Amino acid sequence: MDYRKKFIVPPGKKLRLADTDPADTRDQKSEADSADLIERYRQKLADMQTLLYAEGKRALLIVLQAMDAGGKDGTISHVMRAMNPQGVSVSRFEAPTPEEQAHDFLWRVHMRVPRRSQVGVFNRSHYEDVLITRVHKEIDADTCKARYEQIRDFEAELFDSGTHILKFFLHISEEEQLARFAQRLEDPHRNWKISEADYTERAFWDDYMDAYQDALSATSTRDAPWFVIPSNHKWFRNLAISQIVGDTLEDLGMKYPKPHVDLDKIRHDYHAAVAEADGKKKRKG
Amino acid sequence: MDYRKKFIVPPGKKLRLADTDPADTRDQKSEADSADLIERYRQKLADMQTLLYAEGKRALLIVLQAMDAGGKDGTISHVMRAMNPQGVSVSRFEAPTPEEQAHDFLWRVHMRVPRRSQVGVFNRSHYEDVLITRVHKEIDADTCKARYEQIRDFEAELFDSGTHILKFFLHISEEEQLARFAQRLEDPHRNWKISEADYTERAFWDDYMDAYQDALSATSTRDAPWFVIPSNHKWFRNLAISQIVGDTLEDLGMKYPKPHVDLDKIRHDYHAAVAEADGKKKRKG
Repeated sequence: MDYRKKFIVPPGKKLRLADTDPADTRDQKSEADSADLIERYRQKLADMQTLLYAEGKRALLIVLQAMDAGGKDGTISHVMRAMNPQGVSVSRFEAPTPEEQAHDFLWRVHMRVPRRSQVGVFNRSHYEDVLITRVHKEIDADTCKARYEQIRDFEAELFDSGTHILKFFLHISEEEQLARFAQRLEDPHRNWKISEADYTERAFWDDYMDAYQDALSATSTRDAPWFVIPSNHKWFRNLAISQIVGDTLEDLGMKYPKPHVDLDKIRHDYHAAVAEADGKKKRKG
Repeated sequence: MDYRKKFIVPPGKKLRLADTDPADTRDQKSEADSADLIERYRQKLADMQTLLYAEGKRALLIVLQAMDAGGKDGTISHVMRAMNPQGVSVSRFEAPTPEEQAHDFLWRVHMRVPRRSQVGVFNRSHYEDVLITRVHKEIDADTCKARYEQIRDFEAELFDSGTHILKFFLHISEEEQLARFAQRLEDPHRNWKISEADYTERAFWDDYMDAYQDALSATSTRDAPWFVIPSNHKWFRNLAISQIVGDTLEDLGMKYPKPHVDLDKIRHDYHAAVAEADGKKKRKG
């Protein structure tokens, strides 16, 4: 199945998050039943990234946004690990530093966009500047609207320079978040991650959903679309994102580049090197 | 087996590369026989990197150097892929740009050293500045010797700030290089990588070996050791590097950090959130 069509936020349309069930797994019954498909898409992702790297003509930027415990880290650990680390860079955006705050909000993200041949993954992104800032009323509605336009323009310029952009909102339910918080509390390998903000931000859940709806509706474009991924089931989230990224790359019709050398001359060099090696062996032996 | 002891360049001793057989696989018979061990070390590497990331107190810098086709890319693709991409950054150093050339030779590498909690992988490194430059007589013996000391001082300062350093020379034979060149020639997915320099540089093989021997002998220190990895067999190279990196990290005795919040208070927050969720459900239902 092509989850792009199912989960895209159609450009120009108003998104209603209530229409997406976070526990949805579409045509897939269970992780066990989907194991072959998961492995197939994982392999496709690896192959397509190798090709992107080889071709060297374009970049791919993957933006991940979610509520706390929504699965951004898990997506990176599972989906992005399929790719060769030489072609991937992950950028994690936390509360801005004083230096970052002294610049426009796109400055720090612009510095981290992937160069051609690379996949860049943003764990949080410039979208925080129209989400958390809006929920906590640090910016007013006019500023927020202006930023939507600035973001669209910024992403359009990236696209025009050869950077493909795929943006994912990992959609979990309030109940699922609470269940994951409970797991964190009990797991000594993970409870160091807990912050008080987990619970204080949770109180703003509905405000966040409103902010996400507005932001995603305003910034899902043909060239930089948003997808709302049902993410209560981690395995389905990983499957859907793998499929969307892998098939998007496949549809670009990339080709392995032609050698930039004359292969006949190189074959000649090769045979000369073989003869030289034989001679060296004889001299040594 | 602990390959650290077998393959380390002992600090203060003069390395003779001729003493290492590039086709060596020590106690391992074949890839098939070693499959379980390879998987075990791969898993240890993944676990240890997760712990490094969680602890957040130190960094790990892995330097890879080799002749062309020596397996730097393959090592990254196989060994480093075991780790979570969020905690790994790979830097590939090519011929310096004009901006880089306008600085001291350590400038561009210093910018790419890993921050605490991260693993940084250097595909080529500051060592090119005492290898290729020396082979092609771009620097004289005194400059080269001065750079050895500058490198030791630089790496010592990194170590003192919590950056552990492991340096690997992937040692292949001239015959193996030629065999790999032949494979590249015939594989359309790889022949775009071919450069004429592959063959011109090969003519300087013995000079390179001399340069490597000198550089590794002069810069293998207790805190930033060099290892000469027999690399004709890719599976053995991957196994040995996984073991060395994984066990070095394990020996650091890292611990998951304690939560920086009061877990009792968080448990209270959690139960309050559960009650709030129940209330919300009732109001909606």
